[in-house]
Amino acid sequence: MIRELIEKIRKTAPVVAGLDPMLSYIPEQILRDAFSRYGETPEGAAEAVLTFNKALIDALCDIVPAVKPQIAMYEQFGVPGVAAFRDTVNYAHEKGMLVIGDIKRGDIGSTSAAYAAGHLGKVTIGNGAFEGFAEDFATVNPYLGSDGVRPFLDVCRENDKGIFVLVKTSNPSSGELQDRVCDGKPVYRIVAEMVNSWAEEMIGEDAEGFSPVGAVVGATYPEMAESLREVMPHSYILVPGYGAQGGSGKDLKPFFRKDGLGAIVNSSRGIIAAWKKEAYASYGAARFDEAARAAALDMIEDIHENI
Amino acid sequence: MIRELIEKIRKTAPVVAGLDPMLSYIPEQILRDAFSRYGETPEGAAEAVLTFNKALIDALCDIVPAVKPQIAMYEQFGVPGVAAFRDTVNYAHEKGMLVIGDIKRGDIGSTSAAYAAGHLGKVTIGNGAFEGFAEDFATVNPYLGSDGVRPFLDVCRENDKGIFVLVKTSNPSSGELQDRVCDGKPVYRIVAEMVNSWAEEMIGEDAEGFSPVGAVVGATYPEMAESLREVMPHSYILVPGYGAQGGSGKDLKPFFRKDGLGAIVNSSRGIIAAWKKEAYASYGAARFDEAARAAALDMIEDIHENI
Repeated sequence: MIRELIEKIRKTAPVVAGLDPMLSYIPEQILRDAFSRYGETPEGAAEAVLTFNKALIDALCDIVPAVKPQIAMYEQFGVPGVAAFRDTVNYAHEKGMLVIGDIKRGDIGSTSAAYAAGHLGKVTIGNGAFEGFAEDFATVNPYLGSDGVRPFLDVCRENDKGIFVLVKTSNPSSGELQDRVCDGKPVYRIVAEMVNSWAEEMIGEDAEGFSPVGAVVGATYPEMAESLREVMPHSYILVPGYGAQGGSGKDLKPFFRKDGLGAIVNSSRGIIAAWKKEAYASYGAARFDEAARAAALDMIEDIHENI
Repeated sequence: MIRELIEKIRKTAPVVAGLDPMLSYIPEQILRDAFSRYGETPEGAAEAVLTFNKALIDALCDIVPAVKPQIAMYEQFGVPGVAAFRDTVNYAHEKGMLVIGDIKRGDIGSTSAAYAAGHLGKVTIGNGAFEGFAEDFATVNPYLGSDGVRPFLDVCRENDKGIFVLVKTSNPSSGELQDRVCDGKPVYRIVAEMVNSWAEEMIGEDAEGFSPVGAVVGATYPEMAESLREVMPHSYILVPGYGAQGGSGKDLKPFFRKDGLGAIVNSSRGIIAAWKKEAYASYGAARFDEAARAAALDMIEDIHENI
């Protein structure tokens, strides 16, 4: 799957659109239609989210290789929300996009195995095997150590999927734990070395030296990117925090290898809520999807100029 | 809610039953019934899980104060599995039990806010407010630092709910990160100090000095429990790892305060799959619920003898 991601990036750009739909990002007309059918209920909210996502996927699928739905934004609406997450994943696949499930799961071994099966693999029921959510990649939290991560590696191996392990997150307080220095090394660096050892076990053929085991490093911390790029030479870096969280194109160069591969940059609000920003306000609510496409094209230009 | 938990523990025991149903724990008869109605499908698996859970809840609700469903075991079956999680939470409430959602969520601020609303609070849709999953407590991962935890605190305050933050997990590789020493302190201790500062902000009245902010510390690490009990005097400790993972009653004393409050011990397999263990095999598959009750009573006796 990492090979497929690289191929798609080569044809388009190292960009992923974060599908993290707040109801406030969704144009009134879509909300009204959904509520008129399902009421102002979780079912109505889930329907609005799915309609919004489908239009965004339609508008982005030829210029952006992947989407990254943040499952919390769906889970908050309960079971109907989770169904909208599943349907979003499936619709993105129909349109030829890859899907990074931003789920940040991680638990003791047997539990991580269940998460891995449900999101990246198959679960066996009687004589059948079923996909729960069918993402291509998932984000994974490393706090529990390697036996919380290994079940994901096994599932990736069996199903040609991939993961991005949280190394240095984009949020302001990420340093409280991740920057603490142990034996001369910050925690994020220790995690990066763990990521590299998992990545080395799984370097694929025909994947330009990259492994299905990637890392998350926030665009908001470019000063750490250079050394992390070196510590994890086989890992694609998923870079959140571009745009709304403060990262910009000129911060991105150190996340990439010299050949321009090695990183994929996420933007969520900056793309999906572009119609609410001054720069794209002229599109209006009705053309929110075209506003998203315009914002994605501007982001792609910004990245191509800087890497 | 922490007050309610303490009251219930006083009337019963400091024990929580982990509802982590693998299909292999579920008696053949229940599986057959569910599959005959829904086929060997995720819907069939979810139905079997819910039937199994309801019988366990019926068998335990007068002797155990709370259940802890591990959401991964439901999520693996996709949307029908997540519906079974929701229905399990609701059924436990009907039977007067509290519910600790073992979800181990944690993300950047806006995302953690969505998780907190979905699991412990309410989400606003139009003029209404809806509960997604309605647990009473949730487990939270601290890797992203305080802005990944604070939204849970806000939701706990508004909705009288509680959290247990991962400090030292029960799994064998937990030490890879959690035991690394930074500035003379292991990471788990640094997290414990963070937990204590959040707990201090939220000490409730009439809760015996306890806060809605608790911690997870594995029964498998009793040597750390004593100092962690001191570092977090206001936090209830949720103790996984009893039984199947290797912890025993004699290991538990340091997790408790001298007055016998301060910890709640989880057992999952040891209770819900008791009928598959030699000690309770005489109950047979048909009386799996009575086997679970017998195992819970033995665990309660073991704990009462040791604390």
